Amino acid sequence: MSSSPSIAPLPTKLVSIKEMRANIAAFRRKNPDAAVGFVPTMGALHAGHLTIVTQAKIECDYVVASLFVNPAQFAANEDYDIYPRPIEEDMKLLGQEGVDAVFVPTTQEIYGDKNALEEGTAVEVRGLSHQLEGAIRPHFFRGVATVVSKLLNIVQPDFIYLGQKDAQQAVVVRNMIKDMHIPSELRVIQTVREKDGLAMSSRNAYLNEAQRAIAPLLYQAMGEALRLYVHEKERSTKVLLDAVKDYIRENGNELTELQYISINDTESLYEVETIGKQGALLSGALLLGEIRIIDNIILR
Amino acid sequence: MSSSPSIAPLPTKLVSIKEMRANIAAFRRKNPDAAVGFVPTMGALHAGHLTIVTQAKIECDYVVASLFVNPAQFAANEDYDIYPRPIEEDMKLLGQEGVDAVFVPTTQEIYGDKNALEEGTAVEVRGLSHQLEGAIRPHFFRGVATVVSKLLNIVQPDFIYLGQKDAQQAVVVRNMIKDMHIPSELRVIQTVREKDGLAMSSRNAYLNEAQRAIAPLLYQAMGEALRLYVHEKERSTKVLLDAVKDYIRENGNELTELQYISINDTESLYEVETIGKQGALLSGALLLGEIRIIDNIILR
Repeated sequence: MSSSPSIAPLPTKLVSIKEMRANIAAFRRKNPDAAVGFVPTMGALHAGHLTIVTQAKIECDYVVASLFVNPAQFAANEDYDIYPRPIEEDMKLLGQEGVDAVFVPTTQEIYGDKNALEEGTAVEVRGLSHQLEGAIRPHFFRGVATVVSKLLNIVQPDFIYLGQKDAQQAVVVRNMIKDMHIPSELRVIQTVREKDGLAMSSRNAYLNEAQRAIAPLLYQAMGEALRLYVHEKERSTKVLLDAVKDYIRENGNELTELQYISINDTESLYEVETIGKQGALLSGALLLGEIRIIDNIILR
Repeated sequence: MSSSPSIAPLPTKLVSIKEMRANIAAFRRKNPDAAVGFVPTMGALHAGHLTIVTQAKIECDYVVASLFVNPAQFAANEDYDIYPRPIEEDMKLLGQEGVDAVFVPTTQEIYGDKNALEEGTAVEVRGLSHQLEGAIRPHFFRGVATVVSKLLNIVQPDFIYLGQKDAQQAVVVRNMIKDMHIPSELRVIQTVREKDGLAMSSRNAYLNEAQRAIAPLLYQAMGEALRLYVHEKERSTKVLLDAVKDYIRENGNELTELQYISINDTESLYEVETIGKQGALLSGALLLGEIRIIDNIILR
């Protein structure tokens, strides 16, 4: 008899905080020394998320993912209502990766009856939330820090996994965990890219054909800076940023507008003039009409 | 042989977060179903604190107290530097009450190298932090919510105990715990008073003889409102507040100035015009020179 193609079982789906806590508690009671990993996501999973989950499965005995589109990190004019929510497809993908449990709470479960943007308790990582993405989206990192803090209180994992794609988010969460003495450790997993270099993102689904064709421009332009940094030992941020801007001006088209490009310390996010031994974060945003492509690389 | 007077052993003193966590973890490992209670204090303990500790000892199997003067809840012009810190005396008192462990961290341990008032991660309970005490001390409840959140992440108790004396603080922490899904339950213990009615407070030590003599005035004046509420079924906040103001005007002296007096919903802290079945919080502050006497009673 030949074996039939195996169909991965769906992970346990948990909707309430109470169920989620009971699920973790049951595992911990039986496995007091085991490591629990947690992968928070907004769903609409792609290979970038799945790479994160794979790493969590390697490092942890039990992996919990969450699918929750967090209203506190969308301003009124942003895409909260249309953000994709393919929950059944996401559950299948997480099952294939061997995720043990998936937390899929309602907004009511996480925020109660409160307006997530304006009411209730908020967590803010001062000094790291106002620059770069925070300058464009002033509400964003308060929303991220608040929801990650809530989710960590619910799941209480040993490790939390985030993607390097959202570099500033990772810096904010790392500092929040440290400042607040949260007993979880952050792991940051490197960005997964399409063949043409475009960083995977759930929002890439918004791109039309012409936008998709030019979308790798930001990453390609950052590659110019990386080349100067590595091969010509260029350490002046002005020279490196000018190289990115020049590349985009020369290779962009009527669809593309560089929103910002910046070189910052990887920990403090202070702008640096000359890159030292500790390296630096090169990050930026490219506008394609109303769609924002964000990306970053570490110069080190 | 007659027994010699028993000398209570000092509780275990823990200075670092690492030691504190290891202490709790060791207890939990041996007693997985036991209840851990936590009594955060700024030290300079009085009978009010000790009543809270006694209640925690009744309800919990293991009681941790903390002694930490939190810089984030003092503005630059306030009494942070002179706030009393009689740590050895406090340790003895906690030992007599049977407290199991006392967390006595440095400021560096809790806030790192950051300026606690301005830098690092902060927690804010929006909607409950700007009125009453928050109107006089705009930084105060952010400082309280932030440090309580940190301490809860470190100790991870089943129950946290606060005093009703700081009524708004209890409301802020209750809402923070609920909003943030912190897995600890708040217990609020009623105010302990001197024989003349003055609520016990570490800051009463600042009062000179003349100030101490007139200090019960606020509580006495609130008693007037309570009398009207209970015996004359008065439900108009204007009438009740006028009774407090009149009493203070008639019985105060050149030392006394009513800073505010207010009647608010006990949960939302909204000002109420007419007190309903759910009752209300009557709270105020009396200035005696630079010293503030705060007090409250529940009208219910």
